[in-house]
Amino acid sequence: MSIAHSSFYNMLKVPEHQVAGHLAIDGKLGPLVDDSGRFYKPLQGDGRGNKELAFYESFSSDTRVPDHIRKYFPVCYGSQLLEASNGSGLLHHLVLQDIVSSHRNPSIMDVKIGSRTWYPEASDNYIQKCLEKDRRTTTVSLGFRIAGLQLYGGKESGYWRPGRKEVQSFTVYNVRSILRRFVSSNSSIGNENSDCSFAPSIYGGSAGILEQLLELKAWFEDQTIYHFHSCSLLILFDKESVSKGSASVPEIKLIDFAHVVEGKGVIDHNFLGGLCSLIKFVSEVLSDSKESSIKDCVESEKPGICTDNGNCQ
Amino acid sequence: MSIAHSSFYNMLKVPEHQVAGHLAIDGKLGPLVDDSGRFYKPLQGDGRGNKELAFYESFSSDTRVPDHIRKYFPVCYGSQLLEASNGSGLLHHLVLQDIVSSHRNPSIMDVKIGSRTWYPEASDNYIQKCLEKDRRTTTVSLGFRIAGLQLYGGKESGYWRPGRKEVQSFTVYNVRSILRRFVSSNSSIGNENSDCSFAPSIYGGSAGILEQLLELKAWFEDQTIYHFHSCSLLILFDKESVSKGSASVPEIKLIDFAHVVEGKGVIDHNFLGGLCSLIKFVSEVLSDSKESSIKDCVESEKPGICTDNGNCQ
Repeated sequence: MSIAHSSFYNMLKVPEHQVAGHLAIDGKLGPLVDDSGRFYKPLQGDGRGNKELAFYESFSSDTRVPDHIRKYFPVCYGSQLLEASNGSGLLHHLVLQDIVSSHRNPSIMDVKIGSRTWYPEASDNYIQKCLEKDRRTTTVSLGFRIAGLQLYGGKESGYWRPGRKEVQSFTVYNVRSILRRFVSSNSSIGNENSDCSFAPSIYGGSAGILEQLLELKAWFEDQTIYHFHSCSLLILFDKESVSKGSASVPEIKLIDFAHVVEGKGVIDHNFLGGLCSLIKFVSEVLSDSKESSIKDCVESEKPGICTDNGNCQ
Repeated sequence: MSIAHSSFYNMLKVPEHQVAGHLAIDGKLGPLVDDSGRFYKPLQGDGRGNKELAFYESFSSDTRVPDHIRKYFPVCYGSQLLEASNGSGLLHHLVLQDIVSSHRNPSIMDVKIGSRTWYPEASDNYIQKCLEKDRRTTTVSLGFRIAGLQLYGGKESGYWRPGRKEVQSFTVYNVRSILRRFVSSNSSIGNENSDCSFAPSIYGGSAGILEQLLELKAWFEDQTIYHFHSCSLLILFDKESVSKGSASVPEIKLIDFAHVVEGKGVIDHNFLGGLCSLIKFVSEVLSDSKESSIKDCVESEKPGICTDNGNCQ
């Protein structure tokens, strides 16, 4: 634990690409970032902050977690006393890797995994509050809900970032449609005929989102260390890099560990079920996009060759 | 639909090996069986019976269900008007394959799968009632609960069939212990040092319980036709046949479909999560039993050969 110098405060700013959670704007308490790729998350006073810090401490030293799984978690650099964004004075902040900083114009989806966001040991009041929201959103029906997103549409259209109320009203139909628009070149608002042209390179391929989700799934079928309640999976990539054909690897990261409890020898069946549901949705977008590519090739007047990634040449 | 003759009634009797659900005893309404291997389940008046009949009708004609999955469901022979077991007169009964009839001294476990037994469309009252029971049992914590069981201990000790109250009070610890006792030769009451000697032949092997569960899991990762709420997985085998080395294949069957709803293009993540949790428990018993067999062989004074199924020769 260290106290930052006042000259350091000036470097802190509100994250540009935060799609869910409390925002450090209008005098409110929220996370901050610096230019060196670190993300400062205020430790909430109700014990949740300390629980998340305790999780990171336990996780980072737990030798049972395989190396290939660690890459799905942000690096944690401990905690630090910092001037809070709401002007309330010095406050402990969790210091994390700023996942987004390595992306220029990131498209981001925050997917809260699990068909329940509460944990068995919670109070009746807390459970009822969560259950009500879980039923109102797609959490119960799909096993996950989109908690926030931004889609980069290009230099002209910029970002589409729906508001909190719109996100909370997403139906199963909306979720399916957003998972398509997320990897489409024509993803501007209101466009129902998403072309899914980036699906083969973002969802597909050996380093794509689907393979990463499957790797995570294999771990969740086996690990009985942690139960990740109300935890989110961030999916992010740079559309511009993909368009230009440069090597940008789409990423997934797990975040928000304030409600992680010990697994006690039982797998996290709640997270695993939701993850499998998301995998099914993503793989459907991918297989649809492959089918339509093949169809395009066949229907094209010029003879076309369908490549492995489903694009026509 | 046919009405049975009165001479036929005489052949109907209370099932000998029913481990959960309503029993047709003391003037109560419950299922009956005959000597030809059929199981007659009264259609409950609150619509549940008709929902279950509708499921069987839809399922049996659904060409999307692969043949290798059908074997995990009882055959349904429609419905029949029969004298009810509670003496209330003629009542529609669902006519099903009597799964247990082909077993002489079956050990049976009824495992209700899923971390919630309610479905999103249910009434608030129904949801609260189910939720309360799901939290009180291992349903929430494990993703499944044992709803009933009988263990055959041999000619002398007969069956151990715990009462409803005892079953409902099973903890995670109890469940783990019962999954071991279920495949042990020394499974009499109170014995904590289960030898798991039948684990390799019942849980293991290419036709064993684990392989069957994995085959079912693969289907649940993909199928979006049905969501099986409050459905049970029966696990059954004949301990005597196993002891004598005769070819008795352990079986799993899904039963109780009064709360099945349409999947609408979403996988049954609730069932799948619970199934994966059960698979983890079963595979742990199996790997423990293999380890202890190897240890026994190594520690034995006589040199022993460990066979593939973990037994010592």
